[in-house]
Amino acid sequence: MPQQLTLHEYALSGNCYKIRLTAALLGIPLERRAYDILKGETRTPGFLAGVNANGRIPVLQIGDRFLPESNAACFYLADGSGLVPTDAFDRADMLRWMFWEQYNHEPNVATLRFWVAFLGEDQLTAQQREQLPARRAAGEAALRLMDEHLDGRAFFVGDAPSLADIALYAYTHVAEEGGFRLSGYPSVQAWLARIAAQPCYLPIDA
Amino acid sequence: MPQQLTLHEYALSGNCYKIRLTAALLGIPLERRAYDILKGETRTPGFLAGVNANGRIPVLQIGDRFLPESNAACFYLADGSGLVPTDAFDRADMLRWMFWEQYNHEPNVATLRFWVAFLGEDQLTAQQREQLPARRAAGEAALRLMDEHLDGRAFFVGDAPSLADIALYAYTHVAEEGGFRLSGYPSVQAWLARIAAQPCYLPIDA
Repeated sequence: MPQQLTLHEYALSGNCYKIRLTAALLGIPLERRAYDILKGETRTPGFLAGVNANGRIPVLQIGDRFLPESNAACFYLADGSGLVPTDAFDRADMLRWMFWEQYNHEPNVATLRFWVAFLGEDQLTAQQREQLPARRAAGEAALRLMDEHLDGRAFFVGDAPSLADIALYAYTHVAEEGGFRLSGYPSVQAWLARIAAQPCYLPIDA
Repeated sequence: MPQQLTLHEYALSGNCYKIRLTAALLGIPLERRAYDILKGETRTPGFLAGVNANGRIPVLQIGDRFLPESNAACFYLADGSGLVPTDAFDRADMLRWMFWEQYNHEPNVATLRFWVAFLGEDQLTAQQREQLPARRAAGEAALRLMDEHLDGRAFFVGDAPSLADIALYAYTHVAEEGGFRLSGYPSVQAWLARIAAQPCYLPIDA
């Protein structure tokens, strides 16, 4: 990859961490550019016009092109590597877990972490507060489904780590910051340890 | 593809339609098996144990293996075809729009269609009713972002239709059933007509 790679990010976001972890496991160097989402730095006219019209990080910049959406950026970095299965079913099954992560896991497990640990419960709007029980229940259901799938399996797809594991690791390993208790999910806990033991593993605060 | 392909579906779901449209454009025959989601037929013990532990359709069955998540199923069918770009950036950019669809578009544009046209506004819970304005605003923002991106472009990625177009077409072309007005999005309207004019195009109620 001859082009300069720059990650536009908020470092503690799990979605941004996914991309750094993928790059680390593959030995790909990344430049980093930080934005403070709590100060609205991804909603400025300059950011919307030049980086992402959707006003969100992460965005992976490749030369002068911009790629939003964390899981798409991971796919770009890992396409053709051992983190993307060569078998057609397994490749699609990896994407299945990545879509599931964005639809069923991130809006609950990651959102509760953001609301509880970053904003603070006393800062929530009435509407956010009302959504807490439903999002907590949906987050627990997501963790339970992961735990059942991982019972007897080392990784989400096949016998080796793939982007499915990286995408799901990012917010699961910090789920307790949002008030979830991982001790109830022993297969998830064993899998988290397996990911953290990968060569070139990088912690979220590195 | 020598294995039998069966789509477990609720026919009027845009997520299920995506898969039928992908198969139609590629000339791939699909068996279909219908479930009535309004009667809870995807939450039965048999469905959860045998088809999808997540209790949702669509699921694409490939021989005796099951692949949930609409966009992953589309990817399985189209992998290696002209609907997936060969250029690495474009391939990731296609996935970028598919992830964006599931995170920013479907939970708003599709959910409003389901609430308004399928359940009926008078059947909504108080919490659903309270979420209506925010979901409508987020749906409009998604349609506006699509309209701006399509200004001067024929398709979402590159010069040919890809899975990004199919994924976004599914719920956009029926967005008015959820109360959105597509006349405010002329580039979206021109693009919808372009997709409907593709050889082997299949309507949602076919």
